[in-house]
Amino acid sequence: MTQRIYDQSRRDFFRKAAFAGLGLTLLPSIIEAKSEELTKVRLGFIGIGLRGSDHLALVLRRPDVEVTAICDIDASRIDIAQNMLKKAGRKPAQVFTGSETAYEKLLKQTDVDGVIIATPWLWHAPMAVAAMKAGKYTGLEVSAAISLQECWDLVNTHEETGVPLMILENVCYRRDIMAVLNMVRQNMFGELVYFHCGYQHDLRHVKFNDGKTVHASGAEFGEKALSEARWRTEHSVKQNADIYPTHGIGPIANYININRGNRFVSLTSSATKSRGLHNYVVAQGGEDHPNAKVDFKLGDIITTVINTANGENITLIHDTNLPRPYSLGFRVQGTKGLWMEDGNTMYLEGVSKPHEWESSLPYLEKYDHPLWKKYASLSEGASHGGMDFFVMNAFVEIIKRKAPAPLDVYDAATWSSITPLSEVSIAQSGAPQFFPDFTRGQWMKRKPVFAFGNDY
Amino acid sequence: MTQRIYDQSRRDFFRKAAFAGLGLTLLPSIIEAKSEELTKVRLGFIGIGLRGSDHLALVLRRPDVEVTAICDIDASRIDIAQNMLKKAGRKPAQVFTGSETAYEKLLKQTDVDGVIIATPWLWHAPMAVAAMKAGKYTGLEVSAAISLQECWDLVNTHEETGVPLMILENVCYRRDIMAVLNMVRQNMFGELVYFHCGYQHDLRHVKFNDGKTVHASGAEFGEKALSEARWRTEHSVKQNADIYPTHGIGPIANYININRGNRFVSLTSSATKSRGLHNYVVAQGGEDHPNAKVDFKLGDIITTVINTANGENITLIHDTNLPRPYSLGFRVQGTKGLWMEDGNTMYLEGVSKPHEWESSLPYLEKYDHPLWKKYASLSEGASHGGMDFFVMNAFVEIIKRKAPAPLDVYDAATWSSITPLSEVSIAQSGAPQFFPDFTRGQWMKRKPVFAFGNDY
Repeated sequence: MTQRIYDQSRRDFFRKAAFAGLGLTLLPSIIEAKSEELTKVRLGFIGIGLRGSDHLALVLRRPDVEVTAICDIDASRIDIAQNMLKKAGRKPAQVFTGSETAYEKLLKQTDVDGVIIATPWLWHAPMAVAAMKAGKYTGLEVSAAISLQECWDLVNTHEETGVPLMILENVCYRRDIMAVLNMVRQNMFGELVYFHCGYQHDLRHVKFNDGKTVHASGAEFGEKALSEARWRTEHSVKQNADIYPTHGIGPIANYININRGNRFVSLTSSATKSRGLHNYVVAQGGEDHPNAKVDFKLGDIITTVINTANGENITLIHDTNLPRPYSLGFRVQGTKGLWMEDGNTMYLEGVSKPHEWESSLPYLEKYDHPLWKKYASLSEGASHGGMDFFVMNAFVEIIKRKAPAPLDVYDAATWSSITPLSEVSIAQSGAPQFFPDFTRGQWMKRKPVFAFGNDY
Repeated sequence: MTQRIYDQSRRDFFRKAAFAGLGLTLLPSIIEAKSEELTKVRLGFIGIGLRGSDHLALVLRRPDVEVTAICDIDASRIDIAQNMLKKAGRKPAQVFTGSETAYEKLLKQTDVDGVIIATPWLWHAPMAVAAMKAGKYTGLEVSAAISLQECWDLVNTHEETGVPLMILENVCYRRDIMAVLNMVRQNMFGELVYFHCGYQHDLRHVKFNDGKTVHASGAEFGEKALSEARWRTEHSVKQNADIYPTHGIGPIANYININRGNRFVSLTSSATKSRGLHNYVVAQGGEDHPNAKVDFKLGDIITTVINTANGENITLIHDTNLPRPYSLGFRVQGTKGLWMEDGNTMYLEGVSKPHEWESSLPYLEKYDHPLWKKYASLSEGASHGGMDFFVMNAFVEIIKRKAPAPLDVYDAATWSSITPLSEVSIAQSGAPQFFPDFTRGQWMKRKPVFAFGNDY
């Protein structure tokens, strides 16, 4: 297996693909490579918490995937994962645990073609860099990186090694998002002009628990808490930024071909005061709870406005500290009309009654994306309304085909860079920050690749 | 009448009110002044186009208003207004026309207590300054000013003369907006944190016509066009800014007591490319129409994010060039929940089912504002869903009572300053612009006054 991964011709393919601008123009080489196609993909899991387990459950439904290695610092999560394997009639996976660097040993295994990294955010970039250096197809959970240097580390390592990194941004595959992508590509909205999106999700019960049960009541975070509250909440204590931008921005980036004929140029960000988390701690633990003294730096709502090279604007919102129903708040607007997620509304000039909204639901059904038509039944029961099936399917299929990633390292770096850029903008009263061009100019030549294929 | 308007004691009252911070604390003085209350208000109309006629129709329904003077450069509008007076059984008004400065003569009339200014935007501030100098209660249509200097001109003239200016921002009086104000004041949303608002109105048929009929098809603007297209469109040719901010920002400013305990601190603005107006010209007049060569500077969508002294953020949108149904897109969010206009949704923690939207409509009905309960039947048939009744009622009632304006010169200046500030921000890639403090620090002491009374 080591031999196969490090095979010089494949490495050359990776390099060529990375530098030449992956895309439709490369399909012939990808097709040529098909003779070498894998029939079975051997995956290693780095981080097997709640999110890693979601992915594990998905691949255990696939006969074309073998889970050969799992890594987590929490032994109880290892047990859960092995039980899942056992229940699925699979062989136990080799276990890597006991220290924060156990993943390095997993990456040395020759029976691992690709890894799925679903760990706390601070580990994402270092682990992904190590995985690419080890020649493993790298499936990286969102966000990919938390500093600009980490974004560059991902890009540089990919370009040095030629190993594909795929950012596992599941919302890109949401059914309505892909139906709208289908409509966008049929020019139904005309020339695209404006977007809203964001992450609007009351995470207070995720950021805090009682240290005994996950997602229950409680005012603890950090070492006294379980699961995400152990590490995720710290970002709300320390960072005043859009700390989770990809669920909103990923779908929009695909609509307007970011890094593939278009790019993000600049952003401005603004933060409200911070009230929600403190109030929640007091409501859960009382005014004398030690966490009632914590100064949560994260503003309750972060608003970021992004300018693109092609003249579109995107308003991106981060809203996780206040009571509210979940909504990513999408709006897609062009010269011929617009779609809004909230309220399920649509308006298309010359089609809709003048000046009147109509329901978007019949459109979403009519323009259901071909991939959803193909895979809807297979995706049933997959987490997050089925979209997780699609993102994992894409990751598995590109490994089988030795193909480039449809959501690649440039997407990962560009989308994730919103976090550090917004942090500086907020600290400077909203001063515009300019996106690095992680493609080093290749965005002018690269072609769109997302969801054009028959299989992923 | 001149005597009465220039009466020293009243002038002193004006001055005291202007400097001491108009508000609840001043109610005793206002009540004292009641002995001098007018039973009939004599109004002059400066600008009697479509908007001025709306206001004229409203005051003709009131026995406590006499229309003594009308001014317009367009003789056909004068005829229409005189006919309206006649049909209402009123005496003809004195006419001022024939030149752009005819309004100066109207302002010299002694039988005019207050004027309503509903003219092209470039005339708003100069006319309002002249009206205050002439001692006339000044009702000024939106926006009030287009440059920062004009904003200061309004404020300085008000402070020098003591004459109240009311910005006639009708959306502040919209029924749902006032119901939400009622809910805000009952603390139902908790501490307020975040807002969306804007002016999202497909104005293409307003910005262009055929020069023969208003609001019909056609690709003309400027001298070849009728009505608003004669002057309003020029702002879309020349300015890349939020050129019409008050319908969105007025209601929000009332919710968070701007200039009365709170203030706008800074904004950032961003503009999309400009496509909608050019496309419309081509669709209406063909590619060879002379206006197809016009370079419309106004981006199709302008997004402005405002920071306040109390830590709220407001996202304000200007969207008038693309096909879309009308919506001001309000969102009001606090620590206990939120209301969204689009989709008519509401969420209140501990009241709504957890994580689920409910309809806002029963709330809007239940919390109907006392002023709407009082005046709903009187407002029936008034333009813009009745809200125009309320704004005009307030203007008439303050003149009768010699009271300060509930939406005053500081509001007019602050809200209108968004236009020039956004223009600079856009020109500087979104660089933050800082609001002048038009109250010269008095915002720290001034108390909220909007819609607390029994009569307006």
